[in-house]
Amino acid sequence: MVELIKKKREGKSLDKEEISYIVKGFVSGEIPDYQISAFMMAVCFQGMDSDETATLTDEMMRSGDLIDLSEIPGIKVDKHSTGGVGDKTTLILAPLVAAAGIPVAKMSGRGLGHTGGTLDKMESIKGLSVDMGGEEFIDKVKRYNIAICGQNKSLVPADKKLYALRDVTGTVDNISLIASSIMSKKLACGADAIVIDIKVGDGAYMKTVGQAEELAKVLISIGAKMNRKVRAVITAMHEPLGMTIGNALEVKEAIDTLQGKGPTDLTELCYELGSHMLVLAQVAKNKNEARKTLEQLIESGAAFDKFKELVRIQKGDISVIENTDLLPKTEYSREYKSKKDGYINQLNALDIGLASVKLGAGRETKASQIDFGAGIVLKKKIGDFVKKGETLAILYANDSSFFDKAIEFMDDAYEIAAEKAKEKPLIIKTII
Amino acid sequence: MVELIKKKREGKSLDKEEISYIVKGFVSGEIPDYQISAFMMAVCFQGMDSDETATLTDEMMRSGDLIDLSEIPGIKVDKHSTGGVGDKTTLILAPLVAAAGIPVAKMSGRGLGHTGGTLDKMESIKGLSVDMGGEEFIDKVKRYNIAICGQNKSLVPADKKLYALRDVTGTVDNISLIASSIMSKKLACGADAIVIDIKVGDGAYMKTVGQAEELAKVLISIGAKMNRKVRAVITAMHEPLGMTIGNALEVKEAIDTLQGKGPTDLTELCYELGSHMLVLAQVAKNKNEARKTLEQLIESGAAFDKFKELVRIQKGDISVIENTDLLPKTEYSREYKSKKDGYINQLNALDIGLASVKLGAGRETKASQIDFGAGIVLKKKIGDFVKKGETLAILYANDSSFFDKAIEFMDDAYEIAAEKAKEKPLIIKTII
Repeated sequence: MVELIKKKREGKSLDKEEISYIVKGFVSGEIPDYQISAFMMAVCFQGMDSDETATLTDEMMRSGDLIDLSEIPGIKVDKHSTGGVGDKTTLILAPLVAAAGIPVAKMSGRGLGHTGGTLDKMESIKGLSVDMGGEEFIDKVKRYNIAICGQNKSLVPADKKLYALRDVTGTVDNISLIASSIMSKKLACGADAIVIDIKVGDGAYMKTVGQAEELAKVLISIGAKMNRKVRAVITAMHEPLGMTIGNALEVKEAIDTLQGKGPTDLTELCYELGSHMLVLAQVAKNKNEARKTLEQLIESGAAFDKFKELVRIQKGDISVIENTDLLPKTEYSREYKSKKDGYINQLNALDIGLASVKLGAGRETKASQIDFGAGIVLKKKIGDFVKKGETLAILYANDSSFFDKAIEFMDDAYEIAAEKAKEKPLIIKTII
Repeated sequence: MVELIKKKREGKSLDKEEISYIVKGFVSGEIPDYQISAFMMAVCFQGMDSDETATLTDEMMRSGDLIDLSEIPGIKVDKHSTGGVGDKTTLILAPLVAAAGIPVAKMSGRGLGHTGGTLDKMESIKGLSVDMGGEEFIDKVKRYNIAICGQNKSLVPADKKLYALRDVTGTVDNISLIASSIMSKKLACGADAIVIDIKVGDGAYMKTVGQAEELAKVLISIGAKMNRKVRAVITAMHEPLGMTIGNALEVKEAIDTLQGKGPTDLTELCYELGSHMLVLAQVAKNKNEARKTLEQLIESGAAFDKFKELVRIQKGDISVIENTDLLPKTEYSREYKSKKDGYINQLNALDIGLASVKLGAGRETKASQIDFGAGIVLKKKIGDFVKKGETLAILYANDSSFFDKAIEFMDDAYEIAAEKAKEKPLIIKTII
């Protein structure tokens, strides 16, 4: 192992056998943490070439169980987002594309820090369970064309162990390590094709379009080497997506969107990502046709019906979906008002995400409890003109002392000026 | 700690408080190995500036007990060598400069890999002990002006722990880490001034004069910041120093040298390093005066008497010193002969060192047992003309099967050609 660390330190490429040795040795515990962390730091400086990255992905994928979806007919298309604030697209896209005929076998994660997680959002629906074994999961997908579950412990153990180590050794932000982490999980879940939403902006992991493009290229290259189609859509994460941040609040907004009443940006993103999924699944010939299909599924109520079905088969309380007033609520709310007249030129997604965590909607550490009802509803977004004293957002919490802490972040989030800033597009670029 | 790792990864300098936190946390076990190894790898890429390096040295030095030599009058001058093959200068210099009036409180190390260690060489003298407590050590220096002992476990624990980790994480060769390791040990042993012999060549850690100069500058800069005088002498390590490699064989050669009968290169190096030590100790006004003093101490027998005294006070058998035929010997020996006529243009120190390990004279791992009698006596050195069939060296071992393995390395070590190569100087440069 020392020789392999030195080899990477010197900027040389490792071959399949060497990478396999490292991944297997780390998972088995034969190679100690301190050697892996030194190796990862060397990778952060020297990088990995596309062969190394694909090999690492493959070895990580094979480090545990693999979900076999081959019995399920059709091209299995998965979607992944690199994470943002107010991003509830999975709640909408999963039933939407399932209604279009794509088998949706979705493994999701939980929220941490300023970003939320699909599992937490789903669990804000009373009774709903995301815990199920591999067989039950596949069975549900076979019978209903949809299932969303938490990550199985026996799936990609290399990624879990590696990520935990990278998190505490300053080796998180390397493009090859990020890409192999994303792809190994998606591929272990049996995806034939993957649409990846790479968020760019203050509230996202990638701060520039350049970084996002680089990641997109690495992801696509891994896909190519592993015979899987990958499309990357680079989208803006300067301000939160949609109008809500917080678990139950986002479920409500997802339902609205599935009923054709969602905010423009969220609806648009779902159509964009969903269209790519339909094309990759060969359910539609092209994006135009795909989009029409998706619009019809919303209009006809088929997408919302699929969502209800999803909730039902995962033991959630349907009445909550039919009457969203029954979703978890908080005891307190507070209006957050504008301090001056002008155009909202900034509505920093990171600050809003952190404010929502302070309200109880997120996790500061992995052990934190989530308050499903807590969060923020935005009343205005970037580009809107507001008057002094006008409500910009409503904050929700079950402890009134939380508001002051959240408001500090809210104050940082907004920039209001007399001159309206240039509009930024939501969908920045698609890389195939 | 994660923030400090990231800070170094980004190439920023750490302040005193931050470095202190890292060293203290590592020694106490509060900061885990895997964070330190990632940090060290980041240091290997980003380096440390002179303030950081001096602070690291200071913190490492203070991580354990400090030897207080302040009761002993005079300027305590220590000597350090970065390690080579056949380097027995400490065995000669310690009694030589002690005889000149410099207090010699010397902590030495053991051999590993192709380089030998002073402690092993001394222990090849029957009965001799290098184990003593700090008080006994200081007491001996007070009474006899000389003592050589092994490194106390309570001295510089940070270096022991850090070196062990660097050794297995590919983070050994960084100039700041090397320099702080050397200096923290010397300073913890109470040295007021230090002469450092930086070896350059195939058998040395530093492969080029440029690298050696860089190390010299860092060592001198640490000394300046910590108010200690440091002189670095860059010397050649292309071929072994002197004619012997192996513990008892080197003791014999050291005795010869103390009696004025040593090989030229070894004698010359001892005078060079010793002169610097005498000047730093203010025992001589300049190098010329110092050299004359040293020559007289050899001629008069005072240096050899001091060596005998050293052996006696450390419980060694004096009769072995008076009659070196009583030193450990091996059952077998084998002559190694020249395969052709010509000039010896290469006599690779690394290969010779490795050959001696194969004969049993060194340690392949820390747990290996040393055969004190084993080793190599060179009959010819670089620049000598040899005839085919002429003896180049004699190999000694207690297991006749060892010779074949050693001879593979011997074959690699020599380059004999019709044309004589340009002579390389032994003393390359002195940096003050």
